[in-house]
Amino acid sequence: MPVPVWSVDPRTGQRRERAATEADAAAVDRAVNAAHAASAALADRATRATFLRAAAALLEEEAEAVVAVADAETALGPGRLTGELARTAYQLRSFADVVDEGEYLDVTIDHAAPELIPPRPDLRRYKLPLGVVAVYSASNFPLAFSVPGGDTASALAAGCPVVVKAHPDHPATSELCAALLRRAAERGGLPAGVLGLVHGFDAGVALIDHPLVRAAGFTGSVRGGRALYDAAAARPHPIPFYGELGSLNPVVITEAAARERAETIGEGLAGSMTLGVGQFCVKPGLVLAPATEAGDRVLASLTEAVGATPPGVLLDARMRDAFVAGVRKRAALPEVRAGLPGEGAAESGPRSPDGSVRAGVLTVPAAYLAAEGPYDLLLEECFGPVTVVARYAREEEIGAVLRRLPGNLTATAQLSAAECGADETDGAQAAEEPDEARRRAARLLEQLTPLAGRLLVNGWPTGVAVAPAQHHGGPYPATTSTTTSVGTRAIDRWLRPVVYQDAPPALLPPELRPHNPLGLPRRVDGRFEPRA
Amino acid sequence: MPVPVWSVDPRTGQRRERAATEADAAAVDRAVNAAHAASAALADRATRATFLRAAAALLEEEAEAVVAVADAETALGPGRLTGELARTAYQLRSFADVVDEGEYLDVTIDHAAPELIPPRPDLRRYKLPLGVVAVYSASNFPLAFSVPGGDTASALAAGCPVVVKAHPDHPATSELCAALLRRAAERGGLPAGVLGLVHGFDAGVALIDHPLVRAAGFTGSVRGGRALYDAAAARPHPIPFYGELGSLNPVVITEAAARERAETIGEGLAGSMTLGVGQFCVKPGLVLAPATEAGDRVLASLTEAVGATPPGVLLDARMRDAFVAGVRKRAALPEVRAGLPGEGAAESGPRSPDGSVRAGVLTVPAAYLAAEGPYDLLLEECFGPVTVVARYAREEEIGAVLRRLPGNLTATAQLSAAECGADETDGAQAAEEPDEARRRAARLLEQLTPLAGRLLVNGWPTGVAVAPAQHHGGPYPATTSTTTSVGTRAIDRWLRPVVYQDAPPALLPPELRPHNPLGLPRRVDGRFEPRA
Repeated sequence: MPVPVWSVDPRTGQRRERAATEADAAAVDRAVNAAHAASAALADRATRATFLRAAAALLEEEAEAVVAVADAETALGPGRLTGELARTAYQLRSFADVVDEGEYLDVTIDHAAPELIPPRPDLRRYKLPLGVVAVYSASNFPLAFSVPGGDTASALAAGCPVVVKAHPDHPATSELCAALLRRAAERGGLPAGVLGLVHGFDAGVALIDHPLVRAAGFTGSVRGGRALYDAAAARPHPIPFYGELGSLNPVVITEAAARERAETIGEGLAGSMTLGVGQFCVKPGLVLAPATEAGDRVLASLTEAVGATPPGVLLDARMRDAFVAGVRKRAALPEVRAGLPGEGAAESGPRSPDGSVRAGVLTVPAAYLAAEGPYDLLLEECFGPVTVVARYAREEEIGAVLRRLPGNLTATAQLSAAECGADETDGAQAAEEPDEARRRAARLLEQLTPLAGRLLVNGWPTGVAVAPAQHHGGPYPATTSTTTSVGTRAIDRWLRPVVYQDAPPALLPPELRPHNPLGLPRRVDGRFEPRA
Repeated sequence: MPVPVWSVDPRTGQRRERAATEADAAAVDRAVNAAHAASAALADRATRATFLRAAAALLEEEAEAVVAVADAETALGPGRLTGELARTAYQLRSFADVVDEGEYLDVTIDHAAPELIPPRPDLRRYKLPLGVVAVYSASNFPLAFSVPGGDTASALAAGCPVVVKAHPDHPATSELCAALLRRAAERGGLPAGVLGLVHGFDAGVALIDHPLVRAAGFTGSVRGGRALYDAAAARPHPIPFYGELGSLNPVVITEAAARERAETIGEGLAGSMTLGVGQFCVKPGLVLAPATEAGDRVLASLTEAVGATPPGVLLDARMRDAFVAGVRKRAALPEVRAGLPGEGAAESGPRSPDGSVRAGVLTVPAAYLAAEGPYDLLLEECFGPVTVVARYAREEEIGAVLRRLPGNLTATAQLSAAECGADETDGAQAAEEPDEARRRAARLLEQLTPLAGRLLVNGWPTGVAVAPAQHHGGPYPATTSTTTSVGTRAIDRWLRPVVYQDAPPALLPPELRPHNPLGLPRRVDGRFEPRA
């Protein structure tokens, strides 16, 4: 008997519709084999670029329907989801451009050098797709990190067929998006198997173990991600597992910054930590603020803005319960204060009558976090709209806390104008004679850099731009590798290099032939030659 | 009581000298901590480049002593070891050049684009060293893949201090080379801890588990490499493990190639498989040759040349025993012939009176390898001077055997002039109308490509050029990742990207500042700008 997969409305907890059925081992095997069979059809770069653009266009054409079902399943709201759809379409087109430009192939040619000892042969390297990729969807991005999201787009761009494991929070959205992607594939003459979709916990486990699956992308919890990472590593033939698992995203506010713009910082922080009901992997979850009058003003502004934020509905009941329990457990630690004015600890994140939750702020003396103990709980991510403000009495406490943090996707410094060296136009000259404020800021950035893959000054970590320079990754557990899952470089995860030694021109792939028939950018004898 | 580590002469099996002592957990901890403490001193690129060049120069200055001790411990011979030392010095200097050029930093800058929806911030990405790197030395390259070898050179170039686990086959060489590297470090003002060296099996296990070790490089057996890979993945904070484990390196000889140059092919193959007494990871271990008269001539030429090769001494007694046992077990399979004319199966790789072994050739009908069974043994690497020649009666058998192979470092095609399209100067035009010979050759390359990271036509896989286009890696078990351990790109393994978002110029690292004070090659708003 097939196990039904229900689409649930998180606003009411009621089942909306039967969206799909769970995939058993045989169904997973069929999806993977269909994907594998589609590999050859994906080999042509132009076909892939057309496919990715067609997918973007279809998503936009069907935006109303997609946003409606995604909102019904996730309660993220039409505004946010419309933006997410635009981002997803942009991402698909970006990877189409990446495919067209061809720099991702990293074509590198060293001509034979018979005069060297030993003589060097002719070597020509480029990159080939790894094979079928498994993509594990995220709960909190039903589009941008799910079926039509960055992992899928970058894998397809690389020439890898994809089998997506749907997230149980949005099975209907997943089905609709998969249908759109398949329609785009078929319009471009590609087999529908190029994009598979499976539902159910067991399907996810079967997928990571399938011999034809050659790499996996994952966005989710430390627990789930680590289990799949371990399974990928334990295979007879291990495969790369690119997981984004969890992040605290520390923010440090200097005393000078607090004095200069306490209100702006408090409001900015409130906006970032409550965005999408706090359900971002880059939500700022730990804030180091000075235990001074200026710091009090930051906190006042933060709690006021957070208090004014309307309650929100989390993605599912399990997350809501985990959030409420997590906040309560943290707030129950001695000396931890729930910083919503007029509300007690037990109320700082409760389930409200309609199933929604209120955003909360917890405060604690930073010194409590500097040594191992029960306060370590505050150094663990709490998914949802809550942040911990650790008040430091002395600058040294900042380093003491930062040294105890696990890896992060982001780390943020809120600095004053003088700390930024705002009167200077270029760091080159300024570096010669930094003043005390600049030295302090530089020291702080030096402490933050080992902790994260993205470092922000006077910004907020929510919002991850899709751009060539982007890096969305960080030391474990932020990610399980040194790669990025956002931006152009995300394609690198699904490729392997191959070098041809002394192969005759007629037998070389066109990408590597002497007269560069495809006009690709290449590195020839150590020199970069841009696209012809 | 410290456990002594003996240097052993493999020619006699006698202990030469007490070279070192095994490192216990405390000693490993000291070495890793000393390396970690040296990280800051390695941060400067110019210092690293100077250090790498000084190390190359010192190796060359002490070449006589280094070659002498390496030969005494490995029996590889002064000729080969002198060449290996030159390669090692070249490699150190190559990575100094890589550091100077700075392209490995992958500096990528996207200027802020406030007009986009959502607006894009200023993003500037480069790469930072991962931290302390553990390097596990290879038995068969006491220099080029050991203490001063490619993993060490590329890790130091990246700015990562290194702790080497010495291979028990050459502890004295390891100590000497480590002393030279440390002398080079100290001359350049670097702490000696930048290069640690530990001996002993337990030390290797402690090293992979040490919290401050952030990545590992390994060259060796599937068994040892997999155990360390598993340990690296099982850590609370998993680390990348770049292992090169084992490879069969298939060679396919077409009937047309055999007709055209049977003798050249036979002699070339003999030279490649017996080079260094067959102790190369890229030794051709499986050869598909036609079961025809032309194929007979290849085999005759091969066995004659192999028979004329003087016996050689393997790296240690354990390897010699494993080789002799491996050859006997394979030769004992029904229908497997030991192809040294005049010698029986049991003699095709025996221990000779002085402890050396004779090279051997085994032949088998290719059809026996096309399905699972006892002949699978012939698809496993046998380390030492032996190769398996599988004779195919029909072209289809080639594909049937190739499909059963595990991943490889290399795959080689021996083709005729017509199959190469030798009368054509550029493949671009030729691709339009390939004749039957060319089509056959293209089909063959298509079958070989999924199997390996380096594909050769009419060459032999031994000899891995140090060059930007090189790729030394392949599908598991050839390597445990998609990276290379030889060539410029080997540095990528020890780096992680970091992006700065909206950081003020004065606080940016010089590599990322607006006016490019270091003159680095950069990719700005999607366009590559070469080194200033």
